[in-house]
Amino acid sequence: MSQYTVAVIGGTGPQGKGLGYRFARHGHDIVLGSRAAEKAEAVAIEVADRLSEVEGAGTARGANNADAIAAADVVLLAVPYDGHDELVASLPLAGKTVISCVNPLAFDKRGAHGRIINGGEGSAAESAQKLQPDASVVGAFHNVAAPALWGEDDFLDEDVIVIGDSVDGKQVAIDLAAAVTGRPGIDGGKLRLARVLEPFTAVLISINRKYKTHSGIRVTGLGH
Amino acid sequence: MSQYTVAVIGGTGPQGKGLGYRFARHGHDIVLGSRAAEKAEAVAIEVADRLSEVEGAGTARGANNADAIAAADVVLLAVPYDGHDELVASLPLAGKTVISCVNPLAFDKRGAHGRIINGGEGSAAESAQKLQPDASVVGAFHNVAAPALWGEDDFLDEDVIVIGDSVDGKQVAIDLAAAVTGRPGIDGGKLRLARVLEPFTAVLISINRKYKTHSGIRVTGLGH
Repeated sequence: MSQYTVAVIGGTGPQGKGLGYRFARHGHDIVLGSRAAEKAEAVAIEVADRLSEVEGAGTARGANNADAIAAADVVLLAVPYDGHDELVASLPLAGKTVISCVNPLAFDKRGAHGRIINGGEGSAAESAQKLQPDASVVGAFHNVAAPALWGEDDFLDEDVIVIGDSVDGKQVAIDLAAAVTGRPGIDGGKLRLARVLEPFTAVLISINRKYKTHSGIRVTGLGH
Repeated sequence: MSQYTVAVIGGTGPQGKGLGYRFARHGHDIVLGSRAAEKAEAVAIEVADRLSEVEGAGTARGANNADAIAAADVVLLAVPYDGHDELVASLPLAGKTVISCVNPLAFDKRGAHGRIINGGEGSAAESAQKLQPDASVVGAFHNVAAPALWGEDDFLDEDVIVIGDSVDGKQVAIDLAAAVTGRPGIDGGKLRLARVLEPFTAVLISINRKYKTHSGIRVTGLGH
């Protein structure tokens, strides 16, 4: 299994911090990125603290976004959808493998639902690819619940579905998924299917509210 | 657990026939519907044949669509998306609980993907509800693979997510799901989330092609 250095953009938010922690817990090095380096460094210290007694753990440090990306092979976009396009356009992502776990959701009195992007023919991951044509953008980790990521279980009982148009890019996310679930991620097809995986999180949020749980999904029929 | 009489519109297709068989196998009565009664009757004989040695099975018969609906409390729409709106508009569905498992998909060289309905703000289930305002339309069974339905296993190792704006309508689908998976269906929220569940089938089709399997999904975190 390859070992990666992953820059986590949005590394101080619950999803970014939680995924970064999972990656580092299983041997990858992470650089949490934020607009302000100090904020990222403070969260990195918190993560490194939890890793200090984990055998084989990777390193965790913080940096501003550009420095984090410069230090990494792989960039995880774990940012809110509000302001997503402006932020992504501003980042030095050319040549990088970029994993988007961005969920463009909206909430009203009927609950969570997907935001309509480009008249239904778009997604956050596709927007990122368009804004950064020299990056390899894939989608993964959309549906993993942040509280479980920050928990103490070695692995989460769920699957990570990876979508993308770059086979090599997908393989990186498939590898990294093993640090979260104990199993490689599942190749779910082309990047445009982000239009489905991103708003699927709205279904899980509805289930969580109804059943008072942190739900996830597993793919059956794969013999694992 | 309630026992239902279910009219299956599209009852001669693989999804309709398979779901009808599952319902009847676990005690519900089914009326397979088709435009031509004879075609539905022929498939119903095939289903009844397979049920003849199943203890506690319900009955299976065939009829034209209108007669099938008249005989039933619950109507399963298991029809292709092509021609869906015209067909649904023509059916006597007022007062019925209608379960849509319709998947509006398209295929091209990059694989399966969801069709864009109403600029991203629609789904087959929502269209059915608009066309039949006096029916209670819910969505369920979108992601269940037809070959597994027609197989010999007592239950399928997957979950059925049910969405809808009618609590009573959802309960019917939640009950019927137990005939397919051995567990009640999972309440996944409001009807508009059909925009996610319907095209999610495209992800499973991509997984099936890649891994040569019949995949399904399970929801984790529910303690079952």
